[in-house]
Amino acid sequence: MERVLRFLEERREEAVELLKGWLAIPSVSTDPAHKSDLDAAANYIARILEDAGLKVEILDTGGHPAVYAEWSQAEAAPTVLVYGHYDVQPPDPVDEWLSPPFEPTIRENKIYARGATDDKGQCFTHVRSVQAWLATVGRLPVNVKFLIEGEEEIGSPHLEGLVRNNVERFKCDYVVVSDTAQFAPGVPAITYGLRGLVYAEIFLSGPKTDLHSGVFGGAVANPANNLAAILGAMVDSQGRVQIPGFYDQVRPIEPWEREEFSRLPFDEAGMRNYLGVDALWGEPDYSVLERRWCRPTCDINGLTSGYQGVGAKTIIPARASAKVSCRLVPDQDPQAIFAAMQQYVRERLWPGIKAEIVSHGLAPAVLMDVKSPGMRAARKAIARAFGREPVLIREGGSIPVVATFKEVLGVDTLLLGWGQNDDNLHAPNEKFSLDDFHRGTLASALLWEELAALYGATGAAK
Amino acid sequence: MERVLRFLEERREEAVELLKGWLAIPSVSTDPAHKSDLDAAANYIARILEDAGLKVEILDTGGHPAVYAEWSQAEAAPTVLVYGHYDVQPPDPVDEWLSPPFEPTIRENKIYARGATDDKGQCFTHVRSVQAWLATVGRLPVNVKFLIEGEEEIGSPHLEGLVRNNVERFKCDYVVVSDTAQFAPGVPAITYGLRGLVYAEIFLSGPKTDLHSGVFGGAVANPANNLAAILGAMVDSQGRVQIPGFYDQVRPIEPWEREEFSRLPFDEAGMRNYLGVDALWGEPDYSVLERRWCRPTCDINGLTSGYQGVGAKTIIPARASAKVSCRLVPDQDPQAIFAAMQQYVRERLWPGIKAEIVSHGLAPAVLMDVKSPGMRAARKAIARAFGREPVLIREGGSIPVVATFKEVLGVDTLLLGWGQNDDNLHAPNEKFSLDDFHRGTLASALLWEELAALYGATGAAK
Repeated sequence: MERVLRFLEERREEAVELLKGWLAIPSVSTDPAHKSDLDAAANYIARILEDAGLKVEILDTGGHPAVYAEWSQAEAAPTVLVYGHYDVQPPDPVDEWLSPPFEPTIRENKIYARGATDDKGQCFTHVRSVQAWLATVGRLPVNVKFLIEGEEEIGSPHLEGLVRNNVERFKCDYVVVSDTAQFAPGVPAITYGLRGLVYAEIFLSGPKTDLHSGVFGGAVANPANNLAAILGAMVDSQGRVQIPGFYDQVRPIEPWEREEFSRLPFDEAGMRNYLGVDALWGEPDYSVLERRWCRPTCDINGLTSGYQGVGAKTIIPARASAKVSCRLVPDQDPQAIFAAMQQYVRERLWPGIKAEIVSHGLAPAVLMDVKSPGMRAARKAIARAFGREPVLIREGGSIPVVATFKEVLGVDTLLLGWGQNDDNLHAPNEKFSLDDFHRGTLASALLWEELAALYGATGAAK
Repeated sequence: MERVLRFLEERREEAVELLKGWLAIPSVSTDPAHKSDLDAAANYIARILEDAGLKVEILDTGGHPAVYAEWSQAEAAPTVLVYGHYDVQPPDPVDEWLSPPFEPTIRENKIYARGATDDKGQCFTHVRSVQAWLATVGRLPVNVKFLIEGEEEIGSPHLEGLVRNNVERFKCDYVVVSDTAQFAPGVPAITYGLRGLVYAEIFLSGPKTDLHSGVFGGAVANPANNLAAILGAMVDSQGRVQIPGFYDQVRPIEPWEREEFSRLPFDEAGMRNYLGVDALWGEPDYSVLERRWCRPTCDINGLTSGYQGVGAKTIIPARASAKVSCRLVPDQDPQAIFAAMQQYVRERLWPGIKAEIVSHGLAPAVLMDVKSPGMRAARKAIARAFGREPVLIREGGSIPVVATFKEVLGVDTLLLGWGQNDDNLHAPNEKFSLDDFHRGTLASALLWEELAALYGATGAAK
């Protein structure tokens, strides 16, 4: 173990250089123009895993390929499946980046690039720890499998099928995912809950072409006005979603959770300052952390209609559309929520307006067992690498595959986040602290040892 | 007069070719990139007027130049000021045009191009009629002045100042404007009323950058949701504007108008079919024509926020904006309506959201005296050229300068529309029937004669 940790300490620069090469590839999964970059990003990490000594395969998913790698020579030891993703969010708005999104740049000991934390940077910590074990000790204390996909940012449309078709291949005791965040700088965390997602795009169409708003205004329904009326009524001024039945299945926050969260060193003024707003917002009966982690939402992610150039154009637009997504909490059914949203829209269409509503992804929320052996091992590994016991938190984001792993493989996922909440994921100037990157790598290396020890000590803890 | 009409009949092709040259210049006034095209369009028509025998000046307005031309050798005859504009609307969405917007193309005896009717094509009928009189008779029966500006589509920001600073120069008995439409094909019309306009752009800003909607959703106000809430509440599902005080000054429709309009051969099914909608829409207590001509509106002209590309992006957008315009009717005060709209927006901002609201133009509605000598002359000229008495109508669009002429020069404007309501002005595939173009040219030539006769017969009718 000492050799592993020394390897990681002494060769930090090398790890950063390897990560940079990955971050330089603009693997934007939502944009068909980047198809070849997706392949390049998959091949890049496949090559590194192969060179480290793993058996690697590029799996055809029907969409962007998934990278699978395996080292399975630890007999009678547990098996861990590391899941990550090599695809990234679009870099828009590009002109707000201080350095180009696909030219990884280090400023103040942080690396700036699209994907720096989400998820190339965090995923790479596990690749690096396996490299370190194999380069020094020549073996791993547990069996490790990697599944690194290329469609996470578009809702992982092919991953569930891939997992269902490869149950034996992916069989494991735990999944490990580093795609969340620490609670705060210096406060490492394990995430035991995630919100789900319903992502819809609503297209309204009215007249077959844009019309002169003077000639026709008042006599033909305007799709942009109708869209505003629908979306404007969908969420009230305090964040309560108005879709009928939306809250029917919502699981209440448990008393121990409210207590745990209220003890966390949450800096509301710091959050306001970071966001650049003079006030936070949301359901008045819940704390800010509860709103972010345990309450469902409905946010407009994009609006498009009519003339968007400089100055005035007096038209009734022919079309108006919105991207709208709901974050879900445990026990809400994504299919039911999507159906209720569709009905909500259709019931509010004005005469002469038609709607098309498409789904860009549905995923349920998940909650993990906070007392499992895997959780105990992860807490120890993190405490050693970060010098502090991790706190137990939930997360507002969605990692749909975690629900799939639970359902298909029957295992919990250890969500071990090395990033920070202000790392600008999905926004301009995404970054990752190089210290967090390094500590995450150490924690990963230690996790393999702690898991082996826990299983060794208890027979089969599982 | 016979010679004039023969000239116009025999040289129709030449008139179309001259118009084509003007239409080929992409004089989009709202887009700074087209500055040189604006100058080129002004120079093009200036040259034609000069060649015809008028004294021409290019007037510096502080914005795009205005073309002024004058022929003043008809002693003791009335003076007419022809107002038109050489600027055009943006051609967006360009990919919906069947032929390029600035390559004038004739299909089925109609000319297709941005500006074909609005307003180059209609304005050119008066240029052509003056050409014909001077080329054949060598003189005009009335004094004619032209004022052709380049900022009509952006709300004529410099025209009022220009008129106020040149009262002597623009002095006239009537203004003549052809920038409206016939009531229907074969049903020529004189427009005696126009709606006004308040055009605002509303910019909302929230967090200083786009945020991950999972990490922050529920705890920070989303500018796109707030914008939808504001705009969605501004107009109800039947087109009634909800801004407090909006209807306080609205002048009711007079009984003779309701009667006149109800006699018009209005084809509601034809309008639905033309627009491509299965139902019309609007205030239930008013007919479709009344809604379009005599009732105020509030239409969203454009919406912009967040991610507008293909697929999903899970963000809370940092900003959201809308272009919103109200059509006003007589006695509504544009300044007061704009102020009320601003207040309406500001009162509905959520915590953490800021608003900036800018005006892209304010103009009052206008109503003309339907019994003036100028109106009588115009009715005769149109009846002769079109073979049918014109109907008296109002128009839903706005020509702000008409109010300025009334206030500053003290004269009524004769709104003589040669176009059709389905000419796609402000939309893709704008067109102008070549027959309407020709009849408009004849009517213009006859108008000079009718005006001279009317004044000659009655001494000074004015």
